[in-house]
Amino acid sequence: MLKGFTVPRSPLGTAALTPPPPWHYAVDVLAVEFWSDPDMSACTLPRGVELDARSGGRSVAIFADCQFTANGEEYLDPARYQSREFIVLLEATWQGSQIAWCPYAYTDNDAAIMMGWVLGYPKKLGTVRQTRTFAAQSAASPPLACNSRFAGCVSAHGQPLAEARVILHKKVGRLVGLFERPIVARRYFPRLGAGLHDKPVVDELVLCIMDNILVTDGWIGSGELIFPEAHGEELDLLGPIKVGRGYRFAFSFSVSNNKILADLAV
Amino acid sequence: MLKGFTVPRSPLGTAALTPPPPWHYAVDVLAVEFWSDPDMSACTLPRGVELDARSGGRSVAIFADCQFTANGEEYLDPARYQSREFIVLLEATWQGSQIAWCPYAYTDNDAAIMMGWVLGYPKKLGTVRQTRTFAAQSAASPPLACNSRFAGCVSAHGQPLAEARVILHKKVGRLVGLFERPIVARRYFPRLGAGLHDKPVVDELVLCIMDNILVTDGWIGSGELIFPEAHGEELDLLGPIKVGRGYRFAFSFSVSNNKILADLAV
Amino acid sequence: MLKGFTVPRSPLGTAALTPPPPWHYAVDVLAVEFWSDPDMSACTLPRGVELDARSGGRSVAIFADCQFTANGEEYLDPARYQSREFIVLLEATWQGSQIAWCPYAYTDNDAAIMMGWVLGYPKKLGTVRQTRTFAAQSAASPPLACNSRFAGCVSAHGQPLAEARVILHKKVGRLVGLFERPIVARRYFPRLGAGLHDKPVVDELVLCIMDNILVTDGWIGSGELIFPEAHGEELDLLGPIKVGRGYRFAFSFSVSNNKILADLAV
Amino acid sequence: MLKGFTVPRSPLGTAALTPPPPWHYAVDVLAVEFWSDPDMSACTLPRGVELDARSGGRSVAIFADCQFTANGEEYLDPARYQSREFIVLLEATWQGSQIAWCPYAYTDNDAAIMMGWVLGYPKKLGTVRQTRTFAAQSAASPPLACNSRFAGCVSAHGQPLAEARVILHKKVGRLVGLFERPIVARRYFPRLGAGLHDKPVVDELVLCIMDNILVTDGWIGSGELIFPEAHGEELDLLGPIKVGRGYRFAFSFSVSNNKILADLAV
Repeated sequence: MLKGFTVPRSPLGTAALTPPPPWHYAVDVLAVEFWSDPDMSACTLPRGVELDARSGGRSVAIFADCQFTANGEEYLDPARYQSREFIVLLEATWQGSQIAWCPYAYTDNDAAIMMGWVLGYPKKLGTVRQTRTFAAQSAASPPLACNSRFAGCVSAHGQPLAEARVILHKKVGRLVGLFERPIVARRYFPRLGAGLHDKPVVDELVLCIMDNILVTDGWIGSGELIFPEAHGEELDLLGPIKVGRGYRFAFSFSVSNNKILADLAV
Repeated sequence: MLKGFTVPRSPLGTAALTPPPPWHYAVDVLAVEFWSDPDMSACTLPRGVELDARSGGRSVAIFADCQFTANGEEYLDPARYQSREFIVLLEATWQGSQIAWCPYAYTDNDAAIMMGWVLGYPKKLGTVRQTRTFAAQSAASPPLACNSRFAGCVSAHGQPLAEARVILHKKVGRLVGLFERPIVARRYFPRLGAGLHDKPVVDELVLCIMDNILVTDGWIGSGELIFPEAHGEELDLLGPIKVGRGYRFAFSFSVSNNKILADLAV
Repeated sequence: MLKGFTVPRSPLGTAALTPPPPWHYAVDVLAVEFWSDPDMSACTLPRGVELDARSGGRSVAIFADCQFTANGEEYLDPARYQSREFIVLLEATWQGSQIAWCPYAYTDNDAAIMMGWVLGYPKKLGTVRQTRTFAAQSAASPPLACNSRFAGCVSAHGQPLAEARVILHKKVGRLVGLFERPIVARRYFPRLGAGLHDKPVVDELVLCIMDNILVTDGWIGSGELIFPEAHGEELDLLGPIKVGRGYRFAFSFSVSNNKILADLAV
Repeated sequence: MLKGFTVPRSPLGTAALTPPPPWHYAVDVLAVEFWSDPDMSACTLPRGVELDARSGGRSVAIFADCQFTANGEEYLDPARYQSREFIVLLEATWQGSQIAWCPYAYTDNDAAIMMGWVLGYPKKLGTVRQTRTFAAQSAASPPLACNSRFAGCVSAHGQPLAEARVILHKKVGRLVGLFERPIVARRYFPRLGAGLHDKPVVDELVLCIMDNILVTDGWIGSGELIFPEAHGEELDLLGPIKVGRGYRFAFSFSVSNNKILADLAV
């Protein structure tokens, strides 16, 4: 009787890449709002998802310092249950409803890759870093205060993919325009059988259901963002034609469920 | 029209974690034959796969230095298309036929993780190293010669998982008892929907089809092998009760197809 | 005119591993007090430094999440100016004065290695992690509150070197017994000339001068600590015979100077 | 009585970053000959070393897959005693004698950083990869044969520093123009005392003495080479204005001694 929510399935179920949901996340986020060429943005959307004409291709680039856990105090194993992530969310619509779509995502942790794929985020390995703020005042630590500056960067296989800067302007109780739309993602698993390489066995458009969402210490300000060209990547095709606000906030949520919107494999 | 064999599906199809098959592999292998407690070995087998009573739970621990490519000269991108891997193969049977089963596998590359999951190998991230032999004679390089010594090791998240030593005894034209059985693996992808966490959407027992198999520079000798206990891993439950021959050889093969033996999700 | 505080000296002076001091550090610290076998502790001391008989070999194991900068806003380059460190400080005396001595130190950053050697800390590469606390409340994040639990771990080359747990008991304004002693370190650089391998060109006992020291958010509690045996390491020889308090706090300081106490090369 | 050739000095002497010399190296090398702007090249030279007017600023960019050992069979600890390195050697003169000077060097291993600094190579951490050739023929492995193609790349902190391509043309018994000049390097260790930050305690110009030099499987061909611009690096200032031959060969040597040419600290 093999056990485990994911591979490797094992006698005790402790070897699996991740314990079963619910998964709880605590995150420090640096984010920058941007707009891509609408035609390029539209090209990253799956069948049935459309660019949100009203938002003009608005997107958010998110750098996330994460700690996560299931229900077994896994956060006490920091070698496995911390990650640094980079995610792009693009404003789109599904059957007329406003959603956010994730075309690209990077993380530095194999459990996070697996969790990402199960959730529908197309995660690859990357090295992600963001400036942190520390409780002890120092020239090395920007405080959460007006004019403080933060930077984020992500690279993969030795190539820079995104670099961001944020200058804080004011503390806000609510982050207007961030995480207000449900996220739609795509669970995809290919077949290997001859002649079936383009007939995935799983191709589900799913609505990510996030519980216990909490945003705190929110600051908005101005942002800078570039996506350098990189071999074997296409993020640069979304290279900003306009950059907007910058954000810095703390964030927590839980995940244990999703809703299948469409079976694209049919 | 999004393209790509795997996530992330993208406009040009170059962002995917791996190009579509065929995948070609060139490998240097250090391997050690071992036997586990048969009851523990049996516990790692999926439904329908049985321990091979005739081989008494014989297994092989394989350290592999790999370079891989699809049909686009990807081997010229060594930052992405090299990996170091550790794989355990256990002698078993499927419907009376002799097969090899892969309970655990580790690699240091995200493309290799994805390729592994598509093939049915339950890969996790690990750091794998093996002693290399170099063309230039040196005290730093064991030659392929009698009494030369090689070592292999794998760790994950800062914990050692396996350590091996091999002393070469004689060159052989054929590696009796290695890669003579077809490999059976399990493609597995969970559902996230509430109440469905133990109802995977993909749970296929598959026969791995390897083409263009070539083994060269084969040496056999004696082996040493240990599996230290590690938190969050179960490889140590297969800890050798007996260790046999050691092997060192070069190996190449291609993959572009598999055969589904059974749908375990039913 | 080559420039730069360290190698590589270069035309512009920007290639050096670290800019010149002052160096400012902002740090989150998890620490555990422990006692080793006094004889083993004494064996890690250089000539002229003696075990502090009054403190009975008391030491502290420190896990540090660091961000650092020189005077050029380097903290906005988080890929280079963040590190995770592990340091042991042992209570000792120098000419009758109470000091703390650093026998072993690990970090994950090459600038931090260089800064360590220049300061006199014998840094090696290691992977260091500690449980973090996040501003957004979550099951994934222990708050700074009574009974919260934190863990730290360090490994090098795939081997665990230290693992710690701390349970917070009470917030304190002052961390009695931590960083109250000046740190004495040893700057050491060997000669390579034949016959001179044991005649270092630099062997200085130095007093580390720390400015702008600030400790905040201090909590004390109980600690757990182990030093597993590891090949090529000797930290385990200081394996705790008794473990005391645990600490969790934020810390900042600056460094730009030291004082040479003795030239041990003479 | 603390022991060890380098820090950390320890009771048994096994914790040091590297055992004492002799150090033996076995290496696979991919190299590309190039010429930089002579003025920029000259700017990387220390006092007393001059650009070799006869060679017009000829340099070689070297990608090296290394295994190394001292006299204790350390090569059987592959987690510690393998490295991948990138080194630039520039043709120069010292007091009229032809030498090669090393302005920049990168490695992925802390022992190799320490050995580099002791030898006088200004090593920083980098991720270095080169296409390998394997004994088993495969589409994934270029053979040592005419028209085979190899690539090399190095990055640091997520930024690409150098990318090279080599096409093999012919096997040669002797690599004319490679490693024919003795290497001159600079051992440099700064002071931290106030006012002394530009008065290094060690600043020696040294002649690297290499024993047991063996080159085999030498191939020459054509090369390509670029040095992308990277923040915090100056290698790009040596960006090739002309690229020449490419090389692929195996190489071994030993080191246990050097000769001090000049004390630049005076």
